[in-house]
Amino acid sequence: MTLKLCEIINVGTELLLGEILNRDAQILCDRLAALGISVQRTLTVGDNPGRLKEDFLQALGRSDIVILTGGLGPTADDLTKEVVAEALGLPLVEDTAQLAKIEAFFKRRGYPCSQSNLKQALVPEGCTVLYNENGTAPGCFIRRGEKAVALLPGPPRELMPMLEKSLLLLLEPFGSGVIVSHYVRTVRLGESRMAELAGDLLDMQNPTVAPYAKEGEAYLRVSAHGSTREEAEALCDPVIKKLQNVLGNSVYAVDKDLAQTVLDLLTARGKTLALAESCTGGGIAARLTDVPGASRAFLCSFVTYSNEAKMAMIGVSAGTLSRYGAVSEECAREMAQGARQRSGADIAVSVTGIAGPGAEGTDKPAGLIYLAATDGARSLKEKLETGRADRGYNRVVAEKYALALARDLLC
Amino acid sequence: MTLKLCEIINVGTELLLGEILNRDAQILCDRLAALGISVQRTLTVGDNPGRLKEDFLQALGRSDIVILTGGLGPTADDLTKEVVAEALGLPLVEDTAQLAKIEAFFKRRGYPCSQSNLKQALVPEGCTVLYNENGTAPGCFIRRGEKAVALLPGPPRELMPMLEKSLLLLLEPFGSGVIVSHYVRTVRLGESRMAELAGDLLDMQNPTVAPYAKEGEAYLRVSAHGSTREEAEALCDPVIKKLQNVLGNSVYAVDKDLAQTVLDLLTARGKTLALAESCTGGGIAARLTDVPGASRAFLCSFVTYSNEAKMAMIGVSAGTLSRYGAVSEECAREMAQGARQRSGADIAVSVTGIAGPGAEGTDKPAGLIYLAATDGARSLKEKLETGRADRGYNRVVAEKYALALARDLLC
Repeated sequence: MTLKLCEIINVGTELLLGEILNRDAQILCDRLAALGISVQRTLTVGDNPGRLKEDFLQALGRSDIVILTGGLGPTADDLTKEVVAEALGLPLVEDTAQLAKIEAFFKRRGYPCSQSNLKQALVPEGCTVLYNENGTAPGCFIRRGEKAVALLPGPPRELMPMLEKSLLLLLEPFGSGVIVSHYVRTVRLGESRMAELAGDLLDMQNPTVAPYAKEGEAYLRVSAHGSTREEAEALCDPVIKKLQNVLGNSVYAVDKDLAQTVLDLLTARGKTLALAESCTGGGIAARLTDVPGASRAFLCSFVTYSNEAKMAMIGVSAGTLSRYGAVSEECAREMAQGARQRSGADIAVSVTGIAGPGAEGTDKPAGLIYLAATDGARSLKEKLETGRADRGYNRVVAEKYALALARDLLC
Repeated sequence: MTLKLCEIINVGTELLLGEILNRDAQILCDRLAALGISVQRTLTVGDNPGRLKEDFLQALGRSDIVILTGGLGPTADDLTKEVVAEALGLPLVEDTAQLAKIEAFFKRRGYPCSQSNLKQALVPEGCTVLYNENGTAPGCFIRRGEKAVALLPGPPRELMPMLEKSLLLLLEPFGSGVIVSHYVRTVRLGESRMAELAGDLLDMQNPTVAPYAKEGEAYLRVSAHGSTREEAEALCDPVIKKLQNVLGNSVYAVDKDLAQTVLDLLTARGKTLALAESCTGGGIAARLTDVPGASRAFLCSFVTYSNEAKMAMIGVSAGTLSRYGAVSEECAREMAQGARQRSGADIAVSVTGIAGPGAEGTDKPAGLIYLAATDGARSLKEKLETGRADRGYNRVVAEKYALALARDLLC
């Protein structure tokens, strides 16, 4: 079965002015990949009928499916439906069911229904109308020989239900089996070293293995194509095992992120966690509590930003702060011990560092970070020097390494 | 002066698989609009050299400027530089300054520098190398007669400083005048009420005034075009004043976000702040400490996720928890009082609520949130019912309303 090719065209001058972030492209790409439809290009163009027509016809010439989003609204610059209908030689006709919906929508709200709203009841002749739960603009699905064209509204809250409930069903016959992806996630390894260790596995065709990196971690995407989910999973499985073998303990999880990994380990071991955060300023706690059900294992974080708070809240000694400073191995150790004792948690993790961009009144460099973890019996420590003055980066890296240290203590 | 046309090409199969959200296109579109350069199209393509070359040459044929992002990494599927150099007939040559940077980068981290990293020292002959503060992949700027081509790394953290510090300066000669934008930011008003109050001002041409909304706040962008920055600013100024008049106390700042607004108010009044967070799980502290210099006014946050932590860390009474539950006005009030007393801060703000998606063992609905603030003499409280089960949304809204309550207490 040949893979069907798809192109996406997002229409809207506001996108080209940078006023709004284009979320539609990602939503569509994600759902189409799962259906086994290969998105070749996504294009964003403005509300300009000439350029839109040219780009649409070019995409339709190259691909099996073209999906357009945006430009279905009631105002004069909303032209996507008109341009596509004209390019395909289809007249626009009134859809009576859609007309009734629009009139009912305005009656319910007690607003008058203007002529420009009635324009939204027009659809290309012969299309399948996709009704809109969250707005007045209908979508359309048009068959064109072996090819298909779909029009969807721009706002994600209108697009998503229409996609899930209508369009994906209509596109299913274009799918070619299933694409399954898994993520082998590592810490402390770095993208290039991870890729070197993965070696020849990066050259495979099915599954494909591709390296990615983001702040403080690197991961490999293993992606297989099969006629069924089971077939695709069976292709991924041995490759994931090989990667886990060659990458060893650097692999902290497959598919899960660090926060979920730590919470799962805590739950499995029946342990509770407390944090003492300085330079991350609550960021580690925010990552953990972003996971529903975090309250089962996460007790509290002492966000001790000032020296006074470090002493009062978790008993860091004045001597340590004056002798070594707040950004020191000694302070990190006392923070972890104090957080564990004051909270009654089984384990505690602490972070103190210079997030940057400045040195915050010390002679230590931005990006210098000390971490500590303790379960009472065993203690771990780590020192990072990112060499960067980037506050956001340093904070995220410190958050991830703190979670990695909690994992080490639980493994 | 004719408007110069630009096209953007974002390269990366991970974008077409929907694995990551494309933020680069919005960042570039926003900055180029401010320079008076017109972006005609943005295109996303995969790591496929044949299609990339074809799309690149087509874009260069139509436009004055082509900017490519992504595909500059060390691995074998990173091919943007190679494809562009070949399409332009330029050999790749080693840049010694870049080579030294890469070697120093690895030396600092104590990692071995692999052959694939050394590939990143190669650049198209005759280009201007754009050095990367936050990674090992350099960018490039290539003049081609009257036209220009730029290559930038994909990660926004690497792209943004390179854009702001290098590329925009090189593109200035392509710009037509200056576009200046300001943001009039409100809380508690809602987008439609804000737009109603703004009235006719939304119909202006220069400056334009456009309404936007995101979780928990709504704002108006005032954007003017002039031949100089001073001229554009002079056009914005009276319109911003008019908006502040009609929107009144709902306007918390122009251009600044809530965290910065609260920190500035604290500094101006010589006051310190402590937090007690439950459902936001450290999120308010993370917002505040994301601002450099937050340590001048922000002392600490008690992230008391469990009932035990609420009692032990900030003295919430067992009676209150058993009688009213942790998600109650009474608990919020005791949390704020306890945080203020235990920290010695001048003011304290607390949040407790049901973030969702589930009810977390209570019969209270997701989206029910209680907030309190106190400076010892005066206390404020607020109750929110978002009516949504969306954990992320509820947490962000709770964070913003907590900051808004701190602002109210300081005004």
